[in-house]
Amino acid sequence: MNRIENKNKEYFSDKFQRTALQVQEAQAKLITNAAPLTAEEVPLNQSYGRYLAQAVYAPHPFPAFNRSSMDGYAVIAEDTEAAGNGHVVWLEVAEVIPCGAVASRDITPGTAARIMTGAQVPAGADTVIKLEATESRVDSGITYVGIYTPQKAGEHITPIGLELEAGAMVLPEGKLIGTGDIAALAALGVANVPVRRIPKVAIIATGTELLEVDEPLAPGKIRNSNSPMLEALVREAGGEPVMLGAIVDDLDLARSKVQMALENYDLVITTGGVSVGDYDIMGDLIREQSGEMLFNKVTMRPGSVTTSAIRGGTILLALSGNPGACFVGFQLFARPVIGLMQGAAQPYLPEWTALLGAEYKRANSYTRFVRARLEIREGTVYAFPAAVDESSVMVTIKDSDCLIVIPPDSGQLSYGDKVTVLKLPGEIRG
Amino acid sequence: MNRIENKNKEYFSDKFQRTALQVQEAQAKLITNAAPLTAEEVPLNQSYGRYLAQAVYAPHPFPAFNRSSMDGYAVIAEDTEAAGNGHVVWLEVAEVIPCGAVASRDITPGTAARIMTGAQVPAGADTVIKLEATESRVDSGITYVGIYTPQKAGEHITPIGLELEAGAMVLPEGKLIGTGDIAALAALGVANVPVRRIPKVAIIATGTELLEVDEPLAPGKIRNSNSPMLEALVREAGGEPVMLGAIVDDLDLARSKVQMALENYDLVITTGGVSVGDYDIMGDLIREQSGEMLFNKVTMRPGSVTTSAIRGGTILLALSGNPGACFVGFQLFARPVIGLMQGAAQPYLPEWTALLGAEYKRANSYTRFVRARLEIREGTVYAFPAAVDESSVMVTIKDSDCLIVIPPDSGQLSYGDKVTVLKLPGEIRG
Repeated sequence: MNRIENKNKEYFSDKFQRTALQVQEAQAKLITNAAPLTAEEVPLNQSYGRYLAQAVYAPHPFPAFNRSSMDGYAVIAEDTEAAGNGHVVWLEVAEVIPCGAVASRDITPGTAARIMTGAQVPAGADTVIKLEATESRVDSGITYVGIYTPQKAGEHITPIGLELEAGAMVLPEGKLIGTGDIAALAALGVANVPVRRIPKVAIIATGTELLEVDEPLAPGKIRNSNSPMLEALVREAGGEPVMLGAIVDDLDLARSKVQMALENYDLVITTGGVSVGDYDIMGDLIREQSGEMLFNKVTMRPGSVTTSAIRGGTILLALSGNPGACFVGFQLFARPVIGLMQGAAQPYLPEWTALLGAEYKRANSYTRFVRARLEIREGTVYAFPAAVDESSVMVTIKDSDCLIVIPPDSGQLSYGDKVTVLKLPGEIRG
Repeated sequence: MNRIENKNKEYFSDKFQRTALQVQEAQAKLITNAAPLTAEEVPLNQSYGRYLAQAVYAPHPFPAFNRSSMDGYAVIAEDTEAAGNGHVVWLEVAEVIPCGAVASRDITPGTAARIMTGAQVPAGADTVIKLEATESRVDSGITYVGIYTPQKAGEHITPIGLELEAGAMVLPEGKLIGTGDIAALAALGVANVPVRRIPKVAIIATGTELLEVDEPLAPGKIRNSNSPMLEALVREAGGEPVMLGAIVDDLDLARSKVQMALENYDLVITTGGVSVGDYDIMGDLIREQSGEMLFNKVTMRPGSVTTSAIRGGTILLALSGNPGACFVGFQLFARPVIGLMQGAAQPYLPEWTALLGAEYKRANSYTRFVRARLEIREGTVYAFPAAVDESSVMVTIKDSDCLIVIPPDSGQLSYGDKVTVLKLPGEIRG
């Protein structure tokens, strides 16, 4: 009973009277401490999902040559002018140009070259006639192509630099590399891609109540679902999770483990131990230690107790132990930090306007981030708030495509009202 | 010149007069040949991005016990009825229940238990009073809690089974496992997750014109951008790419390499060699070999030459060598096959209705899949077609969020017209 007797007014006021920051204020404090990590080069085939450490410019025009877009004959347009009205123009086929080959001679008036899709159009030729629109005959060992209709210059030729001029910016710094980017990098000869080092993110859970996933249930205990969820979230955000296990509510143990993590990893995320109970060791730990406290209360639901501090230059982010609050706290705070460390140009969740798919009554004095499903109906985006949205609720996380942002004191919101939503990673399957 | 002389009417009619299938018809032929692979179990932390091989049901209710959602005191609501109007009800604090602990005795009238957020509410108690709404005093070694206002039963208690009843389906078969699913699986003790084996997908490029990414440009040649793009696309779709390199336009070499791939991998994707030129070896290969031809022409742009056959039970999918057509062909045909092999419930690209962000004039007799950017403006989805959309164009792939489906003979489409779009993987950054 000693701990209860020891409570006094200072203890309570310290725990309860935290200075609350707005979400954007808290994010701003984190941003200034989340510098991009060092750049490195990775082989192109390992670059998917990484962020470009510098802009990529075209070292040459693309296409690099005038390219035939048809199988047919490269000719001089002027030579075809006499064709038509039953008159066939016959041109001598000087050679055959497969893809990847180069003509041995220029096209001169009266000659043509058989050319394949994708091959370089020979000098002199200014148009390509489709194979199907021609016929061929051989006379004294010489092949001739017959052309029935006149054709303008430039047809079926993709000109040099159509897609990219030399020196053009192809991909900006900080871009998340996707499949189309890989095609562009390959075409331009970028075999090694400049990216930022992947942040190593330590994950620590606190709580005497926690069981491992493979342990049988025991009275009063719950399985630790936050650590596996955070592991997947860190990976989804591009980081490398380092699992440091769950620790019981022991201040000494927590102190030494957190200190070790801060010294060895780029970011330390904890879950649990930040509310106002007797065993909220992360709160105690952050209060007792030296170093800069960034915030220990945010005007948001769920996750108002989200806490962050800097120790030796490294961010310690203490998320709520409530699964819903842990998830929201990760998306609002950890995700942008992990993105910024990789130099991401757009580290935050995309922000959309959507229409409420159902009424929502729970507005209160803090900004609420409500888990919701999205549906696109006839070109309009609807957001359907989860029926049960307590911070402790875990099961609705899996069904959510976005977080609806409900500003403080919104009053009752109705079907069709416009709301801001933060799009969560992944495809909408409504 | 021999090859040109050898051309005759049968050759032309065979190459040009293919029987064209609609996209859905071609997809249907593939589906019947894309059976789910065998199931296997993977540790929970490797299950992200896999597809569930069977539905998961809750083995126990969740929460598994009546859980306190506050730090405070577990009491009997009836005991608090006398509180209020200056009268404080004092209850004897029988014990302290931290998270993870279980009360040693029931709560009886006149008694209370100090309880932490997340702890199991002791039998007898039916409400939890917030710590901040109480005071405590010690008298003769016994601790008492003082209560100022009456409180109803059920407050601050999350009842057993609120989120999930025992036996409830938590996740359906074929679901793509995301971060929220991992939390649910962890909470329910699913340490090993039933998923389908990852399909091994062989990727072969054809073309004498192809350079490796790290080779310097040479006249008439292009770097092979399709193979790295396909490698990333296969991985994005959940498959394991197996890179079999680029082969020059040599029928014998192609035959033996494709045969080897068909015998060793779950799916074989080639790019190039399927149009109507002289060196279109994939077309020649498929014509000459025994086995079932699924299709060799699809009424779509780009990628009408997309070809598929079955050899020894394995799908051979021959995509166009044009980057834009290769990309579209992958998304329409390869992606669903790779998904179905993993048992995906939703193997196709999500289909949305959007409003055209700009006029579009290029409708023709085939269905056109136009690369486009998406923007969400005030709750409405707009699709902006890429300015240059030739099948040969590579650079617009990276800027595309979706493919606009333009049905045949649509005529000119205007700003604001409703169109169907196929959402490509990844986040919209409009």
